[in-house]
Amino acid sequence: MSDLKAKFLEVYSVLKSELLHDPAFDFTDNSRQWVERMLDYNVPGGKLNRGLSVIDSYKLLKEGGELTDDEVFLACALGWCVEWLQAYFLVLDDIMDNSHTRRGQPCWFRLPKVGLIAANDGIVLRNHIPRIIKKHFKGKPYYVDLLDLFNEVEFQTACGQMIDLITTIEGEKDLAKYSIPLHHRIVQYKTAYYSFYLPVACALLMAGENLENHTDVKIILVEMGTYFQVQDDYLDCYGHPDVIGKIGTDIEDYKCSWLVVKAMELANEEQKKLLIDNYGKDDPACVAKVKEIYNAINLQGVFEEYESKSYEKLNNSIEAHPSKAVQAVLKSFLAKIYKRQK
Amino acid sequence: MSDLKAKFLEVYSVLKSELLHDPAFDFTDNSRQWVERMLDYNVPGGKLNRGLSVIDSYKLLKEGGELTDDEVFLACALGWCVEWLQAYFLVLDDIMDNSHTRRGQPCWFRLPKVGLIAANDGIVLRNHIPRIIKKHFKGKPYYVDLLDLFNEVEFQTACGQMIDLITTIEGEKDLAKYSIPLHHRIVQYKTAYYSFYLPVACALLMAGENLENHTDVKIILVEMGTYFQVQDDYLDCYGHPDVIGKIGTDIEDYKCSWLVVKAMELANEEQKKLLIDNYGKDDPACVAKVKEIYNAINLQGVFEEYESKSYEKLNNSIEAHPSKAVQAVLKSFLAKIYKRQK
Ligand SMILES: [Mg+2]
Ligand SMILES: [Mg+2]
Ligand SMILES: [Mg+2]
Ligand SMILES: [Mg+2]
Ligand SMILES: [Mg+2]
Ligand SMILES: [Mg+2]
Repeated sequence: MSDLKAKFLEVYSVLKSELLHDPAFDFTDNSRQWVERMLDYNVPGGKLNRGLSVIDSYKLLKEGGELTDDEVFLACALGWCVEWLQAYFLVLDDIMDNSHTRRGQPCWFRLPKVGLIAANDGIVLRNHIPRIIKKHFKGKPYYVDLLDLFNEVEFQTACGQMIDLITTIEGEKDLAKYSIPLHHRIVQYKTAYYSFYLPVACALLMAGENLENHTDVKIILVEMGTYFQVQDDYLDCYGHPDVIGKIGTDIEDYKCSWLVVKAMELANEEQKKLLIDNYGKDDPACVAKVKEIYNAINLQGVFEEYESKSYEKLNNSIEAHPSKAVQAVLKSFLAKIYKRQK
Repeated sequence: MSDLKAKFLEVYSVLKSELLHDPAFDFTDNSRQWVERMLDYNVPGGKLNRGLSVIDSYKLLKEGGELTDDEVFLACALGWCVEWLQAYFLVLDDIMDNSHTRRGQPCWFRLPKVGLIAANDGIVLRNHIPRIIKKHFKGKPYYVDLLDLFNEVEFQTACGQMIDLITTIEGEKDLAKYSIPLHHRIVQYKTAYYSFYLPVACALLMAGENLENHTDVKIILVEMGTYFQVQDDYLDCYGHPDVIGKIGTDIEDYKCSWLVVKAMELANEEQKKLLIDNYGKDDPACVAKVKEIYNAINLQGVFEEYESKSYEKLNNSIEAHPSKAVQAVLKSFLAKIYKRQK
């Protein structure tokens, strides 16, 4: 494990302990144990890329200057806020998608003792974020900007989830309603803002920047997040379950996935009819039929071309940015996700 | 309808329209319609007491001085934030409690087209609060205090829900675990802070007060909220479904209700055994058996005595408060709930 990741996990323990002794709530023993188990199950088990990237980005913005212990701690704390936000959305998303596995283990709500209490646990996760921010950032000049940032990004993510969910109902009636602009809108809101823009925005605020001066950075990161979600859609079908930590069910679930949108675009009339008849059915034979068409029109090749084109375009946008430090932040993000397998 | 209520509902339309055109999200027609229907179904249909009390309280704090149009609008906007918070909690609570009706209509998640999308709709409701606050209060000296207040109260409510939910699991194993101190802790957090303290705290902030100087007000309001929740538990069993807008299911749901706690305290050994055998069963015969015991030990009389004792105690605390304006606020609250039938 890298030193940074070890430090990051150390800060998790500190934050967890503070939350388990938060004076704003009078815990019972049972409820304290419940929260601890819930946090350990849902918060630290992912790749932690979003959280770690707050610290990476902050370092790059400081252009090589050593960080004080205090700065490292604060950057880690904000990184964990992003991870907490992610955990909150995943716990609720799994309930709504009726999923089975997450990060190689059963979804939280699938545990026999948990069930729909998981919905409130998601809410508790969400509520931990302002607790962490208040405890460690109240009094900083950017405190209110942090609150506004997390509020805006959470709002956008919830709206993205909403169009994802509504679109699935519409798609069930007519698969042809799925289009690239609609797909782009969904992934921009449900993934890109919180996964890509938020960590960098946290680092910018810590570095004393005004976010209103960085709309160009936001645009690039949101495009990067879109590319990331297209990869996610691709891996749902073509990734290895042991590597991605779950069994993809986008086809069964009638998801507005980049793959089906592209497939409907490229298929001939006969293939389109087969897609319409077999997409969104919880039957392995139907899923196999859909995958057969994906292969027949060489979706893997189409994806690879999309991947290299996106990379090139993003790289060009980054190199056009006036600040070398910001360029370094954006390039580090791009390098982390280009051709990822999980 | 009172003038105040008409004005309050007018502000609802303004806020709704602003939210449906929020520039932070690029709505599709479908998603805008979805949010509008969701808001109209879940936000304005209750008694609106919590929201209206922000305006009442603010007026009393200004001791008779006329409010400007702007002040009325802002107090209404904060009142609606409290109602939005309530709607968010109710939508999710109904999912977790597997309820059927709310405010005289099917629970939102019960509508065929909605289902578990309701969980995300709850999240959207929650996210509207900081949108409203940012739009109308950013720049006010108490902006950050408002954000902190709503964050803290939401956290406490989520924690209250958590112990409510966990306690129900524990109670299913051993009904004797339900006790008055546990009941008090649950209702303090899950109801009292957001229903009683929050509206007054909003009014105090608008009036330029520092909430740290008003912990005595908080204590009184939290006690009042506890009394209110005991009434709620009582009405769940003894209220008329047409009046309270739902069919109570606390007995079937194994709830840590004030009634069952008191019953276990007052029952003889034989009655205790019958309570243990029949409480928490989804069988009308068992529910009838529990109610029979409640009647045998005269729980209605015990409640009436609790009610008058609470009233007296609260009244004494209020009269000991140094500020006449604050006294007026607290008395107005108490008058609204004393001996309520719904
Ligand atoms: Mg999902
Ligand atoms: Mg989903
Ligand atoms: Mg996916
Ligand atoms: Mg309920
Ligand atoms: Mg409940
Ligand atoms: Mg009740």
